[in-house]
Amino acid sequence: MTGIQVSLFQLDNYGPWTVTPEPRPEPDLQALQARLYADVAAMIGSRSGYVFYTRFDNMVAVTNGIDREDHRSIQRTIANRYPITISIGIGTGETPAAALADATERLQSAGSAQDATRTEVLAGPPLVEDDRTAGGDRTGETVTVAHFDVVDVTGKYTDRVDAYDAHLRVQEATHSLARHLYDATGSLAFFVGGDNVIAVCPPLPIEAYRAAIDHVERDVGVEFQVGVGTGETAIDAGMEAKHALERCRRDGTRIEGLPATVAGD
Amino acid sequence: MTGIQVSLFQLDNYGPWTVTPEPRPEPDLQALQARLYADVAAMIGSRSGYVFYTRFDNMVAVTNGIDREDHRSIQRTIANRYPITISIGIGTGETPAAALADATERLQSAGSAQDATRTEVLAGPPLVEDDRTAGGDRTGETVTVAHFDVVDVTGKYTDRVDAYDAHLRVQEATHSLARHLYDATGSLAFFVGGDNVIAVCPPLPIEAYRAAIDHVERDVGVEFQVGVGTGETAIDAGMEAKHALERCRRDGTRIEGLPATVAGD
Amino acid sequence: MTGIQVSLFQLDNYGPWTVTPEPRPEPDLQALQARLYADVAAMIGSRSGYVFYTRFDNMVAVTNGIDREDHRSIQRTIANRYPITISIGIGTGETPAAALADATERLQSAGSAQDATRTEVLAGPPLVEDDRTAGGDRTGETVTVAHFDVVDVTGKYTDRVDAYDAHLRVQEATHSLARHLYDATGSLAFFVGGDNVIAVCPPLPIEAYRAAIDHVERDVGVEFQVGVGTGETAIDAGMEAKHALERCRRDGTRIEGLPATVAGD
Amino acid sequence: MTGIQVSLFQLDNYGPWTVTPEPRPEPDLQALQARLYADVAAMIGSRSGYVFYTRFDNMVAVTNGIDREDHRSIQRTIANRYPITISIGIGTGETPAAALADATERLQSAGSAQDATRTEVLAGPPLVEDDRTAGGDRTGETVTVAHFDVVDVTGKYTDRVDAYDAHLRVQEATHSLARHLYDATGSLAFFVGGDNVIAVCPPLPIEAYRAAIDHVERDVGVEFQVGVGTGETAIDAGMEAKHALERCRRDGTRIEGLPATVAGD
Repeated sequence: MTGIQVSLFQLDNYGPWTVTPEPRPEPDLQALQARLYADVAAMIGSRSGYVFYTRFDNMVAVTNGIDREDHRSIQRTIANRYPITISIGIGTGETPAAALADATERLQSAGSAQDATRTEVLAGPPLVEDDRTAGGDRTGETVTVAHFDVVDVTGKYTDRVDAYDAHLRVQEATHSLARHLYDATGSLAFFVGGDNVIAVCPPLPIEAYRAAIDHVERDVGVEFQVGVGTGETAIDAGMEAKHALERCRRDGTRIEGLPATVAGD
Repeated sequence: MTGIQVSLFQLDNYGPWTVTPEPRPEPDLQALQARLYADVAAMIGSRSGYVFYTRFDNMVAVTNGIDREDHRSIQRTIANRYPITISIGIGTGETPAAALADATERLQSAGSAQDATRTEVLAGPPLVEDDRTAGGDRTGETVTVAHFDVVDVTGKYTDRVDAYDAHLRVQEATHSLARHLYDATGSLAFFVGGDNVIAVCPPLPIEAYRAAIDHVERDVGVEFQVGVGTGETAIDAGMEAKHALERCRRDGTRIEGLPATVAGD
Repeated sequence: MTGIQVSLFQLDNYGPWTVTPEPRPEPDLQALQARLYADVAAMIGSRSGYVFYTRFDNMVAVTNGIDREDHRSIQRTIANRYPITISIGIGTGETPAAALADATERLQSAGSAQDATRTEVLAGPPLVEDDRTAGGDRTGETVTVAHFDVVDVTGKYTDRVDAYDAHLRVQEATHSLARHLYDATGSLAFFVGGDNVIAVCPPLPIEAYRAAIDHVERDVGVEFQVGVGTGETAIDAGMEAKHALERCRRDGTRIEGLPATVAGD
Repeated sequence: MTGIQVSLFQLDNYGPWTVTPEPRPEPDLQALQARLYADVAAMIGSRSGYVFYTRFDNMVAVTNGIDREDHRSIQRTIANRYPITISIGIGTGETPAAALADATERLQSAGSAQDATRTEVLAGPPLVEDDRTAGGDRTGETVTVAHFDVVDVTGKYTDRVDAYDAHLRVQEATHSLARHLYDATGSLAFFVGGDNVIAVCPPLPIEAYRAAIDHVERDVGVEFQVGVGTGETAIDAGMEAKHALERCRRDGTRIEGLPATVAGD
């Protein structure tokens, strides 16, 4: 029933750490944050999940198929590699937004992000144990991933306007898309580099994607195309979405990967 | 005269690479991008500069004091460590925005970001050679860094709303601040994690910072505070800005680091 | 029956790459090799195996419980992250030495390590699929790990002789131990940092460990102690060995983790 | 006069850390050590030095041209990125061995490697400040680097014997070479991967290299060739040595880079 599992990775007492005993150099912090994210991406990825850097001190992951022990193992590895630790909240829900709200609430009930005594919490219900070995009794839950990018971004922006202006436009379009998808559908959308935005969605009709694309074009004048995929894990769904997006690029369509998609749409 | 030097790091032919021969798994791309950024941050940082991940496939750096040979060395190290290469444009100008426009133009004149034959370009005027040994003949150019964060973000957002909503609000506020500073002052502002935004600015009066903070509060209802610092390098300016921001946090002021700042302002 | 599975990771055409088009700076090569090893260690480790850096361009792993698809996935991730690729041979045998000889032979039959056309080979028999889900029908195979360290290395060497001399003595002792264990028992022993040597062994009586320790002391005058562990995976066996070694340190014994061990032995 | 500067990087209280509160998983330790070394290699390398992983918990670097502030900066970056800290001893001497003994002594006088209160020591005489800006008053000190590899290792070992046996032979040859060079000439030699050994040497006549090669061949039956280079920094000397070694490979000579070398020698 509860389609999606979302995990919130929160750095313990990170803000205070960055300025104690005095402010640490920004390049060191940037390198630390990026490496930590790269490691979590690799560890979650090798278990077929997706993680987004979000704010870096709070990372959001889609973790269908990843059990409690896997989370604990990632948490321990971070503690063994970095000068800081992480707490994790695991949540489930009908939509990604509901699952993340659940994860957030579980983590907050264990203490504030800046409570120096709250370290390495792992909050969340005991998941179905050893899900990967379950075989026949899977509940048929699926993850939906929608992979968006800007139509002809290189021709329109990268090679024509200056790098920062292109960045601001992509940032604005990302925000417009993310806000719309969150409010209208309970999806979570994240910028993943270049002109790419990945959204984790509940099952949605093609009209919902069309409405999102239209909204952004009206709101900020940027045109997205999107490939949609579904699967038991984020990786499965995400790869299908990438292949669908390739069809958009090849055929000039705007939405691919959904039953009702019409070529040239 | 030309106060600021900005470098644009652009991945060569990266978009096509990510989908050739077929789409590569997103966690691998995320880990690659984050590691590459972490490495550039460390290499630029050890030479007293700042680099921002921007779009990841286009990174913007403040590189006052870093010469052409240093850039070449970073470029070579990337080629020796990663499956992709980078091109670099170096620009200078009165404002960070003008310097980046200069850098962008120099790079674009060497070919499109998706031209498979454009690899490892290093474009930009011969800089003053061996600047670090110059001693007495420095021109007195300075970099200004403004370090913003959200007033009481943990109490207001992190511990109260869900993680994604907090993320969207910070993203929206970042965009509002960045757009305002760019249009009004030629500054470049970047999200650097948590609720932190770092802007590289031309010399600005305190009113300009006050106007920016007021603009964001009116626009999206988020209240920033800011510490400002200046120095010969981004690191020097940035450390001063961090110390100034600490004074905001301690004293409850909104702007620190500028002559006219009044306590309780 | 065939107790142990060993995988050989071999960099493709690495020697020529390091000097083409001209020699690459040594620090870049060192950083590349160490990072690549760290990544493989993390990826194999998250699947409960151990990997040793060996010669860096040839790494040896104990991979019981890690199937062919896992190996393929690690191989692809390396190709997506690094400027070089790896080939892998998987072998099995009654002893670690026999398993590695099997893995080596399978890889060599696919082409020379410096054949530019041999890339990303994955050689080795189809392993029992999805071994981790097998549940009741495991064959009871176990891995044995022996974790050695030098008795009081800090007091005797690190704090008293110079760093290089201490390094040479540990190197010499490692070599003496490794050669003895390989010739006498078919074990594979590796230096893992500090004064630690980890050996992967077939099932051995306590006398074999005693003989090895005595051999090294006679041969080069360095005294080892050892903790031994067994388990279905290298991680399980290795953690048990570490706990046993802790008992040696605490109690002043020389061999722990085997049935016949006598305190004060 | 004092030709060479050597720095010893020592992890603070690392042994106890690895087993507190209980033994940490080996793959985590291996990944940590390798990453830490990769980072130090990159940081020292970008300042034109060489660092060797040695025992991982004790790393040896050739740091001619790297001043005290650079060392402090590397030390701080490590503390900001890792769960452990490092102490550094800087020494100088007529030979690399004497310089390392000096560095070791300075560090040991600050406390034991396992003294929990000894953290982030930076020991060593105030170096010539800002050496890089000194211009005309350099003392003409040079570093000598000798880069050895095994003649036809792929044909003789990698593709013919099993991977471990090839590893043991290279390890044995490395040890024989390192011990000889240390005792006979005060050089420090280190295995750097594959079949490569890099030695940092005092100025030596060609006969000394010939004697070393002959010694190893008599001692363990492995034949090395060597390229020798000199320069103001390890990088300069090392690159020259690599080019000389390429000449050995191309021409079938055994020693290149020294005045008296005769083709076909």
